[in-house]
Amino acid sequence: MIVIMQPGATDQQIDRVIERIEGLSLAAHVSRGQFRTIIGAIGDKQPGHQQVLESLEGVERVVPIMKPYKLASREFHPASTEVKVGSATIGPGAVTVIAGPCAVEDRDMLGRISRAVRQHGAVMLRGGAFKARTSPYDFQGLGEEGLKMLREAGDELSMPVVSEVLAAADVELVSGYVDMLQIGARNMQNFQLLKAVGECRKPVLLKRGFAATIREYLMSAEYILSRGNRNVVLCERGIKTFETELRFTFDVSAVPVIKADSHLPIIVDPSHTAGDRQFVTSLALAGIAAGADGVIVEVHDRPGDALCDGPQALLPDAFAEMVRQIAAVAGALGRELASIEK
Amino acid sequence: MIVIMQPGATDQQIDRVIERIEGLSLAAHVSRGQFRTIIGAIGDKQPGHQQVLESLEGVERVVPIMKPYKLASREFHPASTEVKVGSATIGPGAVTVIAGPCAVEDRDMLGRISRAVRQHGAVMLRGGAFKARTSPYDFQGLGEEGLKMLREAGDELSMPVVSEVLAAADVELVSGYVDMLQIGARNMQNFQLLKAVGECRKPVLLKRGFAATIREYLMSAEYILSRGNRNVVLCERGIKTFETELRFTFDVSAVPVIKADSHLPIIVDPSHTAGDRQFVTSLALAGIAAGADGVIVEVHDRPGDALCDGPQALLPDAFAEMVRQIAAVAGALGRELASIEK
Amino acid sequence: MIVIMQPGATDQQIDRVIERIEGLSLAAHVSRGQFRTIIGAIGDKQPGHQQVLESLEGVERVVPIMKPYKLASREFHPASTEVKVGSATIGPGAVTVIAGPCAVEDRDMLGRISRAVRQHGAVMLRGGAFKARTSPYDFQGLGEEGLKMLREAGDELSMPVVSEVLAAADVELVSGYVDMLQIGARNMQNFQLLKAVGECRKPVLLKRGFAATIREYLMSAEYILSRGNRNVVLCERGIKTFETELRFTFDVSAVPVIKADSHLPIIVDPSHTAGDRQFVTSLALAGIAAGADGVIVEVHDRPGDALCDGPQALLPDAFAEMVRQIAAVAGALGRELASIEK
Amino acid sequence: MIVIMQPGATDQQIDRVIERIEGLSLAAHVSRGQFRTIIGAIGDKQPGHQQVLESLEGVERVVPIMKPYKLASREFHPASTEVKVGSATIGPGAVTVIAGPCAVEDRDMLGRISRAVRQHGAVMLRGGAFKARTSPYDFQGLGEEGLKMLREAGDELSMPVVSEVLAAADVELVSGYVDMLQIGARNMQNFQLLKAVGECRKPVLLKRGFAATIREYLMSAEYILSRGNRNVVLCERGIKTFETELRFTFDVSAVPVIKADSHLPIIVDPSHTAGDRQFVTSLALAGIAAGADGVIVEVHDRPGDALCDGPQALLPDAFAEMVRQIAAVAGALGRELASIEK
Repeated sequence: MIVIMQPGATDQQIDRVIERIEGLSLAAHVSRGQFRTIIGAIGDKQPGHQQVLESLEGVERVVPIMKPYKLASREFHPASTEVKVGSATIGPGAVTVIAGPCAVEDRDMLGRISRAVRQHGAVMLRGGAFKARTSPYDFQGLGEEGLKMLREAGDELSMPVVSEVLAAADVELVSGYVDMLQIGARNMQNFQLLKAVGECRKPVLLKRGFAATIREYLMSAEYILSRGNRNVVLCERGIKTFETELRFTFDVSAVPVIKADSHLPIIVDPSHTAGDRQFVTSLALAGIAAGADGVIVEVHDRPGDALCDGPQALLPDAFAEMVRQIAAVAGALGRELASIEK
Repeated sequence: MIVIMQPGATDQQIDRVIERIEGLSLAAHVSRGQFRTIIGAIGDKQPGHQQVLESLEGVERVVPIMKPYKLASREFHPASTEVKVGSATIGPGAVTVIAGPCAVEDRDMLGRISRAVRQHGAVMLRGGAFKARTSPYDFQGLGEEGLKMLREAGDELSMPVVSEVLAAADVELVSGYVDMLQIGARNMQNFQLLKAVGECRKPVLLKRGFAATIREYLMSAEYILSRGNRNVVLCERGIKTFETELRFTFDVSAVPVIKADSHLPIIVDPSHTAGDRQFVTSLALAGIAAGADGVIVEVHDRPGDALCDGPQALLPDAFAEMVRQIAAVAGALGRELASIEK
Repeated sequence: MIVIMQPGATDQQIDRVIERIEGLSLAAHVSRGQFRTIIGAIGDKQPGHQQVLESLEGVERVVPIMKPYKLASREFHPASTEVKVGSATIGPGAVTVIAGPCAVEDRDMLGRISRAVRQHGAVMLRGGAFKARTSPYDFQGLGEEGLKMLREAGDELSMPVVSEVLAAADVELVSGYVDMLQIGARNMQNFQLLKAVGECRKPVLLKRGFAATIREYLMSAEYILSRGNRNVVLCERGIKTFETELRFTFDVSAVPVIKADSHLPIIVDPSHTAGDRQFVTSLALAGIAAGADGVIVEVHDRPGDALCDGPQALLPDAFAEMVRQIAAVAGALGRELASIEK
Repeated sequence: MIVIMQPGATDQQIDRVIERIEGLSLAAHVSRGQFRTIIGAIGDKQPGHQQVLESLEGVERVVPIMKPYKLASREFHPASTEVKVGSATIGPGAVTVIAGPCAVEDRDMLGRISRAVRQHGAVMLRGGAFKARTSPYDFQGLGEEGLKMLREAGDELSMPVVSEVLAAADVELVSGYVDMLQIGARNMQNFQLLKAVGECRKPVLLKRGFAATIREYLMSAEYILSRGNRNVVLCERGIKTFETELRFTFDVSAVPVIKADSHLPIIVDPSHTAGDRQFVTSLALAGIAAGADGVIVEVHDRPGDALCDGPQALLPDAFAEMVRQIAAVAGALGRELASIEK
């Protein structure tokens, strides 16, 4: 850390900062410039040290040198991580397609849609059973009954399944049915939930909060990693900005920035970003071209009857066409579509 | 709702929309313009109707006429709500000052700080026991032990206390100690938690998520209200924008906009917004001048030793001066400081 | 337009709105619902009508049905526009690569860099002579001397050239040297300048303002088109958001959204978006995969000596590799690199 | 500046950075930590030095210590500046009210409105003659004819007048009529215009761009100051964020943050921020309570007939009430309304 003193900081204030740095078992290197004194704090920094120094009088600001996450950082883990989810793999080299309906509505629709996405190239099945809905009056999901249907559909087609878990108290229940636990964007800083999935050993799909900086996002991954679960997959799904033509702004730069900073795989969710099926394929292709390890998309064969998010669901034919284009772009960049392991 | 068809929408697509509107037990009023057909859907709209219509082919967009919240809306509840929290009241006419340390650290510091804020004009005591921290390596709070200390400190000074609850599973525990449950910004869309506090009868302080629109914020209040708990107080505490001089951007306009739209009381939290004690008083005064029903601020007498958020804590003297200024501004606008009921 | 009245609007207020609509030579269609009255205003809407109606008492809001731009809209001009810039073309089917240094510094560096980009696939040359710099103390460009050098370099290599014009008063001067006038992001709503280039007949590269919605952006294009200059090329170059890892957030969704709304070509500028050469190629590929008609990038062979924006300049080898990858992705999606017409 | 090297930076890269720092006539202080090497660059930094160092290989980032503006900074000019505009003064101690119509429409309306605002407490008159409108089809102002009317109205009531100038070429013309030149938000980074008003000696009202950070805003003030014009008044008028209930988000924190950083006066414009007269007074009061030196607001007596921005114009009675409340809040904080000098 580097402590930048205010222009008029007194010697007494400077001494107090030095004393406090040494009290934290760090070494203080003082450098007096024409306008300001700068003090380097060198050694084994602990969480909270920055705020302690910022609280002192005469301090203008404190500049951290190290990133605040360690386990998520590529600096201490240079090789890219590959996460296995049942027969599927997410990570370097291949592009993994995950698809399915927004919510599990009933056995029949789930069967139709899961067969369609399997046929057209998906290697994992998604489907919501516990839904996080902005309105208390919207469909909240089938709960455990939905998880059972999802498990059956996955087993029938040999596809691993992923579904969202909304609360720490539900982690055990949901883990009993799925191959991968999803943490939704609204729960990215639900730290109780992060700790709970960190103590579980199922792979986790951690979506980026729509107001989270990349740094905050990787800190949330660090919560899970620090509890011992190393199977974390990240997912860019749009951020809130002043531009409102689509539901969210697709921060495609997050893909290469996170790839540079972290060894964790990252996929993209163009469906929730766009909120409109017309734009899903373009965003999916942009994500893959930028280096994403896969996509997760919503598909419905009768979107006018969908109980949630019908406007953003791809029809099966459009999904098939999107997968063909993803395969072509991946191929152009020396990667290929992940297939289901036999 | 008003359905706006695409320019080239076919008669068949228009008929399908009309049929679907009628299937939802609504009446369809068709109006054919030079470039587009517009279809009004009149009657008792249900959640989810908008997405159903948006999913249909040929539909450009659907414009809702009614706000999606009812219980939170001033339209159906014109009088401003007053929320009683033990001996304190939050609502029209008075300005309520809530203060205390960021986190309960130990009995001694809590005693010192609570006496100071009580003496200088606070009528409620705040203090965190379960802390939501961005980093897994930061101090996470004393848990139940902290709640006990907070309760004791409040009882000793006859001040109602408020503390954050992080998970639905903890609502019962925390309710046993506090007079008001706080939902933090990061949990504003933790719908499980909202439902749990909605079923409890303790007053709730619901902070605005830092990426939540006012509409989404009021939908979260609606979650609590719809479960039967009508004692909800809102709190503006800053939103994420491109401006980073302060930790968050203080959306002071949220105060009058919410006052116009909703009957619920709203206070402001200048400490978390600013992240720097130097700016807390200015923001507090701005909030009160804009019509807020109170403030919640953090105070510490030794911020360099604070276990969390030391840089934003006011020293007791600065707190006293802030309360004096708040009283003056409130007085200028025909309001007064809330005092503790005898 | 649709006028939505407030819940308690009086008959008198409603009558006043109807009267005002008819005074604007529009027809008023009134529809009284349970909670609100809605009034459709049908006919030939003029600019300013919306604000007139919003100003009336009892009006809650006015929802426009038509987009506010006509000449830029695909609704009235379904075929995609192709813009010719000397021997180069920007528009459907091909991917146009424009490259060069941030600023023209001297004849020697410009020669080296322009030969390098020409050799590796650029078909147009960029270079700044009038620079818009955030600081008054930064290098402001060589002015007309720089334009002369740029013209010479372009002529020598048979490459059309593009350079920025900063003020209406300079349009004639700059037009004398370049094949395409660039309007920078900070001038996207400098309406005097838009009018001036609209009256000129040189093609215009109009960059998106970093706080402009897509709608505002197309309104700026409309300014140019409405003065008679139909050769407008759009360019996404990043928007301001809370995410600050890169200089701007690359709004890649703007590409397909604008393609759906407008017939104008759109390219991307990954250099200014990223501000860091490490991420330029990923963003360029994302833009092309999302459907952009080309890229404009900055190249420098000695970035440590560059007088502006050295950190974002690609080295010639990295540029060559980027063009190879762009060609591969374009090919995968049925498009090809634009080449120089013989 | 402090140069932070990448974790794996080589000795050769470090040497190259040191050499470059010394080549810029600065001293290099090297500090090797466990994970990274840090190099301080001490001495007389010049514009552009930061980018030069960032361009070098092995550099992770460069942290500037000094703010990039000098003339606008309170660090080198501790006393608050007072700007005289004819008989009015803007600066410490008093609260200056500027009011008038959005646009000068005709002599009659201007007379009515200027008399009303004068009577109710305004000490300066505003009115647009050259209008920056988002749409090319909107009313663009009366031009010089409007300036003449504004001058006459001001003279008749002994009120100094302020009006916007849109282009460097118009500075001389507009200066001939007004007492203060306004630079609108869309032109805050129109550097040609900033230079032109910097060379003029009329006071300048520089509005904050709606996507400008406070730092960028002060850099734009620096442009004007560095050309010799020291009479700059700043104005917060809202920024673009994801929240769209009002036209812009009122960044009231900009007031105290700028007061801490700069000696220049700052006022607020609640009319353009809100875009809706219902919220103008609350925002004005918030701005004054936060420390603003004044307000500029739009007033119209027949907003339904206004040629621009009718929805945000206060009626004269509401204006009078707002001024009364501003006076009360100012009084509560030890300040008073500025009055017209006799």
